[in-house]
Amino acid sequence: MTVLDQARSGRIADVVKRAAHSENVDPAMLNSAIASGRATVPANRNRHIERPFAIGEGLRVKVNANIGTSPDYCKIDAELAKLKAAVESGADAVMDLSTAGDLRTIRRRIIENSPVPVGSVPIYEAASMAVREGRPVPQMAASGIFRAIENHLVDGIDFITVHCGVTRAVLDNLNEQGRVCGMVSRGGTFLAEWMDVNGRENPLYENFEDLIALAREHDAALSLGDGLRPGCIADAMDRAQVHELMVLAGRAARAREAGVQVMIEGPGHVPIHQIEAQVRLQKELCHGAPFYVLGPLVTDIAPGYDHITGAIGGAIAAMAGADFLCYVTPAEHLCLPTEEHVRTGVMASRIAAHAADIARGLPGAAQWDRSFAHLRRHRDWRGMLENCLDPALAGRLRKEGKPAEDDVCSMCGEHCVFRASVQEKSDH
Amino acid sequence: MTVLDQARSGRIADVVKRAAHSENVDPAMLNSAIASGRATVPANRNRHIERPFAIGEGLRVKVNANIGTSPDYCKIDAELAKLKAAVESGADAVMDLSTAGDLRTIRRRIIENSPVPVGSVPIYEAASMAVREGRPVPQMAASGIFRAIENHLVDGIDFITVHCGVTRAVLDNLNEQGRVCGMVSRGGTFLAEWMDVNGRENPLYENFEDLIALAREHDAALSLGDGLRPGCIADAMDRAQVHELMVLAGRAARAREAGVQVMIEGPGHVPIHQIEAQVRLQKELCHGAPFYVLGPLVTDIAPGYDHITGAIGGAIAAMAGADFLCYVTPAEHLCLPTEEHVRTGVMASRIAAHAADIARGLPGAAQWDRSFAHLRRHRDWRGMLENCLDPALAGRLRKEGKPAEDDVCSMCGEHCVFRASVQEKSDH
Repeated sequence: MTVLDQARSGRIADVVKRAAHSENVDPAMLNSAIASGRATVPANRNRHIERPFAIGEGLRVKVNANIGTSPDYCKIDAELAKLKAAVESGADAVMDLSTAGDLRTIRRRIIENSPVPVGSVPIYEAASMAVREGRPVPQMAASGIFRAIENHLVDGIDFITVHCGVTRAVLDNLNEQGRVCGMVSRGGTFLAEWMDVNGRENPLYENFEDLIALAREHDAALSLGDGLRPGCIADAMDRAQVHELMVLAGRAARAREAGVQVMIEGPGHVPIHQIEAQVRLQKELCHGAPFYVLGPLVTDIAPGYDHITGAIGGAIAAMAGADFLCYVTPAEHLCLPTEEHVRTGVMASRIAAHAADIARGLPGAAQWDRSFAHLRRHRDWRGMLENCLDPALAGRLRKEGKPAEDDVCSMCGEHCVFRASVQEKSDH
Repeated sequence: MTVLDQARSGRIADVVKRAAHSENVDPAMLNSAIASGRATVPANRNRHIERPFAIGEGLRVKVNANIGTSPDYCKIDAELAKLKAAVESGADAVMDLSTAGDLRTIRRRIIENSPVPVGSVPIYEAASMAVREGRPVPQMAASGIFRAIENHLVDGIDFITVHCGVTRAVLDNLNEQGRVCGMVSRGGTFLAEWMDVNGRENPLYENFEDLIALAREHDAALSLGDGLRPGCIADAMDRAQVHELMVLAGRAARAREAGVQVMIEGPGHVPIHQIEAQVRLQKELCHGAPFYVLGPLVTDIAPGYDHITGAIGGAIAAMAGADFLCYVTPAEHLCLPTEEHVRTGVMASRIAAHAADIARGLPGAAQWDRSFAHLRRHRDWRGMLENCLDPALAGRLRKEGKPAEDDVCSMCGEHCVFRASVQEKSDH
C-alpha cells in the first residue's frame, strides 16, 4: 500500500506522522488532506528520510533548492557542499538536477547525504545516456526514459519531475500562437525534440499507466512538470501554458485515483498582476493539488538578482495558495550557482515562504516575528543575532559596521529610538 | 507662485515640463494631476535640479535612497560616495538623514552634488543643535525646529519630512493600546519626547501655518511623516497608525489648499495581507495624494536581508498604488549602510518598482522585459549584459561562472534550451 492508499483507508503512515509532528499539525488532519489529494508527503519507500515534510493545505510553505552538476562544472564534492549549504540554510527539500558526470553515483551520494527529501528529473539521465552512446538527444530511446525513471526510484528519489503535459496538441498550440522565448524547460525541450524527430506522442503521456506503476511500486510522488512554463513575462499565461496545465490536471486525477501522490509544477516568469490568477487556476483545475512554483520571477531584466525577483513572486504566489517554492539563486540565467549562491537563494525563498505563512494566518507563523520584535525593542542583540533568519550574515554585518556603544547599532547610535524615554509608555 | 499654484491656474512650470518629458508623459496631464494633488514634483525653487521627477497617478514608481552620517560613522566623503553610488544605481531621489558632523555642510555638499531631488528630516538638525548646546533632545527649542526647517529650505532641499501627525491625541491612543515596538521613527520620537517633557502639543501640528508659509516661500514639498509607523508586523495597522494617518490627511488637504505640494509617508513593517488595505486607506483618506512607503518589510526576522523583505513589500504596495519607494538596504537594523549596501538597496527597490509598473500596466514598462527576453532567446550575451538592470554585477557573475562555450551559460551548457531545434517553431 502507498501512503495515499493508507490515507484513504484511514491508516496513518509513519512518515505522515513524522511530517505532521515536524510542524505541529494533527496527523489525522494531514492524513485526510493527503487522502483528498490536497496534501502530499513525498517519501520513497526505499529509504528512510530523516526530515520528511508535507506540502499543501493548512501547512507551512516549503522551500526546495536545486543542486547538481552541469557540463561546465562537474564535481561531486562541490555538489555535496551545496547540499550541505542548502540544508543548513533551511531548505526543506533538494532536487538533484545533474546533467554531467556519473549521474547515478552523484544521485546516490546526494540521497545518502540528504536528511531532506530529494527530487530529480529523470529525463536528464535518459538524454545524457543517449549522448554518451553517441546519439543526439532526440534519438534517445523511449524505453530509456522509463529506465532512467526506474533507476531514480530504485535509488530512493522521493519525487520525480515528469513532463506528462507536453503533448502534440499542446505543442501545436504553442507553435500556432508563437512565443518570445518558446520552451525553457530543459526536460520539456528534450521531450519536444524527441516527439518532433520521431513524429510520436509524448511517451510520459501515452504510457502514463507505466509511470503510475513505477511510482506505486516505490511509492514516490509525481511532480507533474510544466514543460510549457513561460520563460519571460511576455509569454505568461498563454494558451500553451494553460493547455498543458489542463492536461496535467487530468493526469493528476488519474494518479491519485491509482494511489499515487502528486504535485503540480508551475511557472516561471509571471508578472505580478497574473500571479494570483495563475494559482487559483491551478488550484481549481487540479482540485487542490499542491502547487510547486519556480520563483515566479516578476521581471526578466534582473539577472544577478533573480533570488529577489523570485522572492517577490514566491511570496505573492504562496499568499495566493502556492505550497512549495523552488528557490532561484543570484546565478540564475548566468551560471551554475556556487555554494554561496545556494545559501542566498534558500534564504530569499524562506523569507517569501515565511511572509506568506504569516499572510495566510498559519498558526504560530507570526509568533517568530513577535518574539523577535520583543528582542529588538529591548535591544537584546545577543537574542536577535541568535534568533534571526541568518545569524551568520547578521553577525558579520553587525561586526563590520560596529557601533561605539554595544546596546545600539551604528545607524542611529545614541539616537536609537528604543532608548527614548517615551518608549516605556506603550510597553504594556 | 508655487508649482501647485501654477498648475491650478493652468500654467505648466518648467520643472513640471522636464519631469513629464523624462518619463514621456503629457505635461498637461501631469499638470492636472498636480493641480488635483494626485501627483507631486518636489523641486525647491532655490536650485536647479538636473533630473526632476514626478510621483503619483499614472507615473513610473520612483525610488529613494537614504544616505547620511551617524554618530558612529561620520565622514562626508563616504556619504558623497554613497550619493554617487545611489545615483549611478538609478535612485530617483536621495534623502540626507545625517545626524552627526557639520550637518549644514554635509547637506550643502550633497545638494551640490546631487542631480536628483534631495529630501531631508529637519528635526534631526534641531535635535543635534540641542545636543551640541548641551541640552538633551527633549529640551530643544520649538523655534529651533522651525529654524532647522528654514535652513534646509534655504539650502535647496526639495522635500522635507515633517511629522505633523504625532499629536497628543495620537500618542494617547498609542499609549492606551500599547505596542510591541512603540515608536520607531527617529523624528517622531524626538517630537514625542519633546511633547512629553514640555507638556505641549506638537509644534509642527499646532503651527502648521508657519510650516506652510516656509514651504510656499521656497516651493518645497512636504513629506508628511509617519511617526507612528509600525516597527514590527505585530504593530501594523493599529489605532495609533490609522489615527495619525487621518491627522496627516487633514494636513495634506490644508497644504494643498495653500498651494503646497505634499506626499504622505507610510510604513514600515507590514504583513503582506495588510499591504493593499493600507495603500487603499491612504489613497482614500488623503484624496489620492502620492504615497511614499519605507519598504514595507513583510517580516521582522531577517536582518541582513531587509532589502529583500522590503522589495517584496514594495512591489505589493506599489502594485496597490504606492508611488514612491524608500529603499531598505541589507544593513537595515544592523548598521549604517556602506556604498555597496546602497547599491544593493537601490537595485532591490528598482526591481520592486519596475515589477509594479508592469503590473499597473504603465505604458512601455513591459517593453524592457520583452526586448530583454528577445536577447535571451537569441543568446545575445553582449546585449543582455548591456541591457540588464545591473550590467556590472551580471557581468561579474558570468565571468566567475564562465561556460566553455560563449553562446550559453554554465548552468545548462550544451543543453541550453535556446539551442534546441524545436525553438524555431514558435518564433514568429
